[in-house]
Amino acid sequence: MFSIGDIVIGGAKPVVIAGPCAIESREQYFAVAQEVQRRGIRILRGGAYKPRTSPHAFQGLGEEGLTLIQEVRLATGLLIITEVMDTETLEKVGAVCDIIQIGARNMSNFSLLKKVGKFGKPVMLKRGYMATIDEFVLAAEYLVKEGNHQVILCERGIRTFETRTRNTLDISAVPLLKMLTPHPVFVDPSHSTGRGDLVIPMTRAALAAGADGVMVEVHPNPRKALCDGLQSLDFPTFNLLMNEVESLIPYLTREGKL
Amino acid sequence: MFSIGDIVIGGAKPVVIAGPCAIESREQYFAVAQEVQRRGIRILRGGAYKPRTSPHAFQGLGEEGLTLIQEVRLATGLLIITEVMDTETLEKVGAVCDIIQIGARNMSNFSLLKKVGKFGKPVMLKRGYMATIDEFVLAAEYLVKEGNHQVILCERGIRTFETRTRNTLDISAVPLLKMLTPHPVFVDPSHSTGRGDLVIPMTRAALAAGADGVMVEVHPNPRKALCDGLQSLDFPTFNLLMNEVESLIPYLTREGKL
Amino acid sequence: MFSIGDIVIGGAKPVVIAGPCAIESREQYFAVAQEVQRRGIRILRGGAYKPRTSPHAFQGLGEEGLTLIQEVRLATGLLIITEVMDTETLEKVGAVCDIIQIGARNMSNFSLLKKVGKFGKPVMLKRGYMATIDEFVLAAEYLVKEGNHQVILCERGIRTFETRTRNTLDISAVPLLKMLTPHPVFVDPSHSTGRGDLVIPMTRAALAAGADGVMVEVHPNPRKALCDGLQSLDFPTFNLLMNEVESLIPYLTREGKL
Amino acid sequence: MFSIGDIVIGGAKPVVIAGPCAIESREQYFAVAQEVQRRGIRILRGGAYKPRTSPHAFQGLGEEGLTLIQEVRLATGLLIITEVMDTETLEKVGAVCDIIQIGARNMSNFSLLKKVGKFGKPVMLKRGYMATIDEFVLAAEYLVKEGNHQVILCERGIRTFETRTRNTLDISAVPLLKMLTPHPVFVDPSHSTGRGDLVIPMTRAALAAGADGVMVEVHPNPRKALCDGLQSLDFPTFNLLMNEVESLIPYLTREGKL
Repeated sequence: MFSIGDIVIGGAKPVVIAGPCAIESREQYFAVAQEVQRRGIRILRGGAYKPRTSPHAFQGLGEEGLTLIQEVRLATGLLIITEVMDTETLEKVGAVCDIIQIGARNMSNFSLLKKVGKFGKPVMLKRGYMATIDEFVLAAEYLVKEGNHQVILCERGIRTFETRTRNTLDISAVPLLKMLTPHPVFVDPSHSTGRGDLVIPMTRAALAAGADGVMVEVHPNPRKALCDGLQSLDFPTFNLLMNEVESLIPYLTREGKL
Repeated sequence: MFSIGDIVIGGAKPVVIAGPCAIESREQYFAVAQEVQRRGIRILRGGAYKPRTSPHAFQGLGEEGLTLIQEVRLATGLLIITEVMDTETLEKVGAVCDIIQIGARNMSNFSLLKKVGKFGKPVMLKRGYMATIDEFVLAAEYLVKEGNHQVILCERGIRTFETRTRNTLDISAVPLLKMLTPHPVFVDPSHSTGRGDLVIPMTRAALAAGADGVMVEVHPNPRKALCDGLQSLDFPTFNLLMNEVESLIPYLTREGKL
Repeated sequence: MFSIGDIVIGGAKPVVIAGPCAIESREQYFAVAQEVQRRGIRILRGGAYKPRTSPHAFQGLGEEGLTLIQEVRLATGLLIITEVMDTETLEKVGAVCDIIQIGARNMSNFSLLKKVGKFGKPVMLKRGYMATIDEFVLAAEYLVKEGNHQVILCERGIRTFETRTRNTLDISAVPLLKMLTPHPVFVDPSHSTGRGDLVIPMTRAALAAGADGVMVEVHPNPRKALCDGLQSLDFPTFNLLMNEVESLIPYLTREGKL
Repeated sequence: MFSIGDIVIGGAKPVVIAGPCAIESREQYFAVAQEVQRRGIRILRGGAYKPRTSPHAFQGLGEEGLTLIQEVRLATGLLIITEVMDTETLEKVGAVCDIIQIGARNMSNFSLLKKVGKFGKPVMLKRGYMATIDEFVLAAEYLVKEGNHQVILCERGIRTFETRTRNTLDISAVPLLKMLTPHPVFVDPSHSTGRGDLVIPMTRAALAAGADGVMVEVHPNPRKALCDGLQSLDFPTFNLLMNEVESLIPYLTREGKL
């Protein structure tokens, strides 16, 4: 458990992080920021640098995205989480965000882990889709060993033979990680399932299993998203999600709970 | 949704099925039956025939187990679910139980599926641990094609590279199966995780994701179980599980839920 | 090592088994039988009963297929391998063939294994696509425990995340199974890859790794096959395969080989 | 196909790369270099920087390892392949080697791929153990897009449920990669299997399937290796491996081969 500003991560009340997969434009990013803030979200996601399987796919807005992050952060007061892809851009990315995200593909990029561990800002480390829980725990050790204890672990699905979902969300990782480490544990129901229609039930499952929060993708028009549109929530569905989370909170925060 | 006696399967309220993995003795089976009945359980599990990886391992009590099932059923009024392993024993097994279970290893035993489909009793079909959701749905079709519509689907974990759990419980299968089929969907948090300490959080997750029920293993003395002891709940932990399920019910059955 | 008629299984020289996936008609089966016999094949494959994922797909010719097997066997003198799917048809299937095949989906059908173990004919046991090597070895134990020592193990691919091939052919299983058991080890490059264009290189790899033989699918017109056409070889490609096997034999059977 | 000095990569004759997993000391590295050179090896492997799951494990000799590489290279004339782990050390690592290796964990480290693509030296890109063939092909595109066409692809096993081997060597990747790309394809039978006793049969299988070469680990005393000792070959076994490769060459390079 630790605090970022006045937000407690890993406390009694679960935290929802929301925002677009990639920052695509000023309008898109501000529209999402305002919508999620309206529903009480305090931490905004959104990527300026996107790791993509193909070198020919949209790679994010880069520095222009970082400028938009600064604008939104000032204008709204939202805390920002965004991904760092390499050590070269760490200074620039770290300067504009409140939580540095290390993506699944970089979970075993040990050189990056060491640098981010020294950087001094809270980190969300996503589980590699090919990583065992033990490997995930040891990757977090790379951060802690450099003196950074503000580490959030994020389960985001593992690769299996199943094809109806992009990856298989391993919800049992949530209680296991809480047994094995002192770190808060989040779940990403968007990237793991790759399907917007599974985000609400998987959010409920994650929180009921004891997750400290979820991180979800929201887009004003998922069909036109430049990246990961299929899994993003439009605004009405995002509002249903928030209703569900609010309904679940009394159960999650009751006295005498397990 | 359908009823077995006065129990609604697939209705608003989730159903917990509990009992030992294998029936080991008269004392053991009665002890579990009485304990679970005391907490409101209406359907008792317990295997007389056990499919085991090694021919040298305990294979279940066989016919002696079927006799014990009859005794417990008469003495307690509990409904019984038990596994059938082959067509030869179908008549005998089917005569003493209320729900016929087809285990994960037999999900693609199409000759067995056809015979059980014709038998006329409700069936719980467990997902093969290497079966895609589409293959699972088509396996259920083998039952339905023979005229049996009282089919319960049970997610029980799939095989992945992760070794901290016996299998990886694929909770996203719950909402997917409910989109793709009309059948009630259960989850087995005991076999999937292979760990008693994960049964409670995974039960919560399964129900929150929309499962119609769970099936859990309970044993008076898990350390001495002849089969699957590591994943069985002792009586105190089973009682904690039931407390959790009862706390969650108001959330699950509220008006206006998704 | 053992002999079936005058054919040594598990000896110095590798054995190629070939034939159609399913027997589709008198013409098709005879055409393949004659073509493969022309190239020196002594054991013909071909299924009368086909386990299919969907109950709505072609399930094989059944008894009509068994009759065709008898005809071809008499007319050509070829030895026959064909799959048995259940204990009910074991007598009938066993009566017309020389080697009983147990398919991947039935590797853990322990009731079937026990009956086939008692039946007294040579058996080819295919590895379940979800089975570890240890589980495969223990499944063979079910046959041996009933007194049957004429067991051929067949690696036919395991299920992984890769989608370019139907399954991932685990060639390392070949030397491992030879270390762990006394049984001859075959490889099925057709079902494992699901692609005709990989059958020749995977046959070479299997034999070079020490396999005692391969079993391949051949069809007069793969595009019109009722089952698994994509992976079947047409006659010209089958002839190229046989050329390759013949070229490799001097290397495989040389003095002082490992 | 391309040449490094007078060595043709991707030509008719397969190439064996050998050497220790990690460079541990001057004695160890020189001993291996001399032994492999004695058997005709022209390219020596050996890591100065080792990516390790745990931050507490041996991480390689670092710069001291680079100095030893320079010494061995000068003293023996062997060409050197060694792994680069990050963009910061690229200049230093690239200065002392002839082929830059990108390890499995870094296959999707796109920032590193771009920099190495621009560096101008031949690259061996290892397949991520959880990467599909299509992802592997696209990762190589990151190198080619920057102007580097001297790319060797190396299959080194994928992660599956099997536990008898460290990973499952996907030999079918060899012909598939040769259909899909113009790059030479190598196989690493040491890391994939994690077992010295499988290196010889898997080398034979890889070459028979059409691989342009293999890369194997050799250590003077595998039991005392600081890293991956179980999979390293001692000198006598390495010599048996070379005998096998030499026996296979006439088959692989014959006229009219497929």
